[in-house]
Amino acid sequence: MERAALLHRPDSEYAYLFEKEVMHVRLRTKKDDVKEVKVIKGDPYLIHEDKWYEESEAMVIVASTEDYDYWQLAVTAEFRRIQYAFHVIGVDGEEVFYGDRGIFEMSNETIEKAENYFRMPFFQEIDRFKSPEWVKETVWYQIFPERFANGDKSNDPEGTLPWGSQLPGREDFFGGDLQGVIDHLDYLVDLGINGLYFCPIFKASSNHKYDTIDYFDVDPDFGDKALFKKLVEEAHKRGIKVMLDAVFNHMGYYSPQFQDVVKNEEKSKYKDWFHIHSFPVELGKNGNEEGAKTLSYDTFAFTPMMPKLNTANKEVQDYLLDIATYWIKEFNIDAWRLDVANEVDHHFWKRFYEETTALDEDFYILGEIWHSSQSWLNGDEFHAVMNYAFTETVTNFFVKEAISSTKMASGLYEQLMLYRDQTNQVMFNCLDSHDTARLLHMAGENKDVAKMTLAFTFMQHGSPCIYYGTEIGMTGANDPDCRRCMVWEKENQDLDFLEFTKQLVALRRAEQPILSYGTLTFETLNNEDSYVEFTRETTDGSLKGYFNKGTKNQVVSGDTNILLSQNIEKTEAGYLIKENGFIISK
Amino acid sequence: MERAALLHRPDSEYAYLFEKEVMHVRLRTKKDDVKEVKVIKGDPYLIHEDKWYEESEAMVIVASTEDYDYWQLAVTAEFRRIQYAFHVIGVDGEEVFYGDRGIFEMSNETIEKAENYFRMPFFQEIDRFKSPEWVKETVWYQIFPERFANGDKSNDPEGTLPWGSQLPGREDFFGGDLQGVIDHLDYLVDLGINGLYFCPIFKASSNHKYDTIDYFDVDPDFGDKALFKKLVEEAHKRGIKVMLDAVFNHMGYYSPQFQDVVKNEEKSKYKDWFHIHSFPVELGKNGNEEGAKTLSYDTFAFTPMMPKLNTANKEVQDYLLDIATYWIKEFNIDAWRLDVANEVDHHFWKRFYEETTALDEDFYILGEIWHSSQSWLNGDEFHAVMNYAFTETVTNFFVKEAISSTKMASGLYEQLMLYRDQTNQVMFNCLDSHDTARLLHMAGENKDVAKMTLAFTFMQHGSPCIYYGTEIGMTGANDPDCRRCMVWEKENQDLDFLEFTKQLVALRRAEQPILSYGTLTFETLNNEDSYVEFTRETTDGSLKGYFNKGTKNQVVSGDTNILLSQNIEKTEAGYLIKENGFIISK
Repeated sequence: MERAALLHRPDSEYAYLFEKEVMHVRLRTKKDDVKEVKVIKGDPYLIHEDKWYEESEAMVIVASTEDYDYWQLAVTAEFRRIQYAFHVIGVDGEEVFYGDRGIFEMSNETIEKAENYFRMPFFQEIDRFKSPEWVKETVWYQIFPERFANGDKSNDPEGTLPWGSQLPGREDFFGGDLQGVIDHLDYLVDLGINGLYFCPIFKASSNHKYDTIDYFDVDPDFGDKALFKKLVEEAHKRGIKVMLDAVFNHMGYYSPQFQDVVKNEEKSKYKDWFHIHSFPVELGKNGNEEGAKTLSYDTFAFTPMMPKLNTANKEVQDYLLDIATYWIKEFNIDAWRLDVANEVDHHFWKRFYEETTALDEDFYILGEIWHSSQSWLNGDEFHAVMNYAFTETVTNFFVKEAISSTKMASGLYEQLMLYRDQTNQVMFNCLDSHDTARLLHMAGENKDVAKMTLAFTFMQHGSPCIYYGTEIGMTGANDPDCRRCMVWEKENQDLDFLEFTKQLVALRRAEQPILSYGTLTFETLNNEDSYVEFTRETTDGSLKGYFNKGTKNQVVSGDTNILLSQNIEKTEAGYLIKENGFIISK
Repeated sequence: MERAALLHRPDSEYAYLFEKEVMHVRLRTKKDDVKEVKVIKGDPYLIHEDKWYEESEAMVIVASTEDYDYWQLAVTAEFRRIQYAFHVIGVDGEEVFYGDRGIFEMSNETIEKAENYFRMPFFQEIDRFKSPEWVKETVWYQIFPERFANGDKSNDPEGTLPWGSQLPGREDFFGGDLQGVIDHLDYLVDLGINGLYFCPIFKASSNHKYDTIDYFDVDPDFGDKALFKKLVEEAHKRGIKVMLDAVFNHMGYYSPQFQDVVKNEEKSKYKDWFHIHSFPVELGKNGNEEGAKTLSYDTFAFTPMMPKLNTANKEVQDYLLDIATYWIKEFNIDAWRLDVANEVDHHFWKRFYEETTALDEDFYILGEIWHSSQSWLNGDEFHAVMNYAFTETVTNFFVKEAISSTKMASGLYEQLMLYRDQTNQVMFNCLDSHDTARLLHMAGENKDVAKMTLAFTFMQHGSPCIYYGTEIGMTGANDPDCRRCMVWEKENQDLDFLEFTKQLVALRRAEQPILSYGTLTFETLNNEDSYVEFTRETTDGSLKGYFNKGTKNQVVSGDTNILLSQNIEKTEAGYLIKENGFIISK
């Protein structure tokens, strides 16, 4: 057995309270190296009296990657506190005891010693990671407000281009606004989605509004606060939740606070709101040029228009938290998406979590983090992150054909094992966004590929998101091309794609319990490189997925209750799945 | 190479801000399996522009255990944000890239891809683990107040036994008090210690005072608040810091709050201060008997006298935080030791950290946790824990002779690698306490063994603690025997031991910079089972330790500037270290 590969970490995603009285324990071992793992466990204060170490309970493998097997077990404890260790049996027959003091040969002396065990000292409900139930039931729809619909021409900024008249340039305005969203809420109901994620709507100078001028106001290009209130009310009436985008890593250069620093420099009362290295900070002076590698103040990336906020400053914290709570209290929003969340400190996000969830215990907090995010997902900062690692893994197989199905399954399992199960249930899975090329573009305009990728995504753990226009076959390369105007003329919409998306959303929502809570088992690992089968299963039922990216036809035998499919053919033996074909069945 | 053994965890003790602009990066590999590791790193926003992946920096092994090698590197970043990955070269010549998306073969494609790198998104000073400087310079002395000295006979409780007249029983009182401590402060100055850790002094019913009745009062058996104020002042005058013991996991059965629940049951305003399962909660009723396995309320272990507090209740939190801050504000104490800290929730300890360090940024918070404590030591809860894993490892070699020096070194390295370097610098290293048998007892009354164990401990990372009386050769088995009355008659003190301890304390304090900041290298790993050599080293100098537990003499050759030694003999070639002999040299 490869002892050096054994991995457990107490009080982490490897050992956490899943429900009030149920704890999940995980162990990582080298792939195919261990044949059995048993958990030895009991009350810390009864080890000698009860001799509970004489019994143990078997773990099961819940994820297998290229390098590892992951074992898991749900355990309970009469007195809500537990000591535990692993009895690991290698395929070579070697048996070891793995606990808090390391790895030992199995012996009576070892198992009887209290210090050798890992501890969950008490089942603290207050520390438990809790995810909002409604997110598990949500299919998101992301709107880039400047490009979704122009419902009110009176608020179009000067120089607004005719809707859809050209591909968007970086600085263009097309007049999209909140009235446009309200006008199309019933379209969204018809599509079946029940969560709206808005890119920023606050007053800012650019078309994307990530350079905020006033967090307490709606951008006049989009409407006003009364209109936004109406939008939320109308959405809620239709069972649609609303998530706004909070850009708290940086402010806009033209915000009154930063302009005060530009003007008053050392004497500005806002000088400690930012990270200033020297004065002046004015654009065009002191090296502060677009594209300059060093600026006289910290920014997002090297963007002088986005001076970084000093969130270690209590005044800044209070200011941002006022904003965060204002939009919840006054407008009843359901969630915040946090821009560049990884570059803001944990200390601030913990306060953010406290104050927002105190107002609404079902509030959802989503961080924009593109990399592994364990330290933000311990239950006191975010509920989930934008799951770009998922996106990358899925598209690498389905779209770019850069990896095998085995590698995809391995990557997806690896990502699930980074987090607690309750995180995975509310992970935000998007295939594209305002920050990436559109799915259809990545798929080389092949709609079958785009559809099967969406279908696969909707079958996974986490709540899926559709980027506006995907459902009608919109395409576009990287920013700014991915931010084209939504197509509203039926004749220019792909109505087949729309119908397909509706069916997929309906399927996802109908089968939500299995898709939120079911196990995930990839069954064709190490089989065919371009084909993947999997099962999602709870005690109440199961769903199966069969996806064929290869040119070789695949056969699914027997009778199958097909819920959704593409590029298949009924045969005597069952079904033939052709290239870019798939079946989702029950 | 054993890929499955590679381990890194972003934003943890494997990747943390050590100083404001210096980050430490660690990697774990299988023991003797890897010959070189290099860190590839650079600014996340300049990967393509700067092509920084074309260069890398070598890590060094800072700890080698039985199963693993631990590599470390200090890195800086011009823009205080970094992406990094590991270029790992096996002894077999295999080279891999290990980053955020897993393990890959080294290739241009892999190293050029931004997503493949781990991230420290921003060097957040506010999130950095900060340890109080004074703790690094502290040698602690633990006092069990009822047994240290009786300075005021007028406050002796009824039935007080004559001082030292017999071995202590579980319920005995001998009259120790705060005046007794004040009377002997100059003795402590002479000993050289500069930190006092007091077991509880608050009003309680038992002799150990872990069953608090009133956290806002000093127990009348010990004195009063004015006297305690004087004690702190007198200690501070002498350069001695004061740490009190906070018992916040549970209260005493006889506290007014719990008595209110006993009396008023459902109607008590304190009923949600505890974890009550059913009424009555009165002792002797409803199964609430000493030794009963289930009680009608949660307790510490199965001790009905110690009802567990519900620290998820905001009222309880506020009450306990009032206490925590009261003793800092009014009495100027320097540290809290937190009893049964692991069974109280993280949520509470984070508030505790905020509120106490806001009053005094140099405040020290020490948790009583006997097992691995990573999740309490991230910089926002405790600064250190009572390092019983260290105690066990050291005594297993020096005292119990249960493990080899290799195993001891392995265990010590393993524990250091559980935490950030700034934690290790302030770890609380005690060899015994009121909760264990005394060192000399464990050592079979062999004073040479006790002395060499102390000497070894004082040479390690962390601040060492002497349990009262150790310095004069006191012994005692497990509680209550380890709580004997301090011996004050010179004729009954071991004055050689006292002189030895003074020298050791003086050495520790004189060499503090090397002992706090120096590397630790065990040099005889896998050599002699009963002999250990090590070096502590900074750029300013080094110390060496040679410790021989075996019957075979060991030779230290050459001239050596000996700072402290025992059982050695000068020879022509250098020194002979006999059984239970040691040399600390410079």
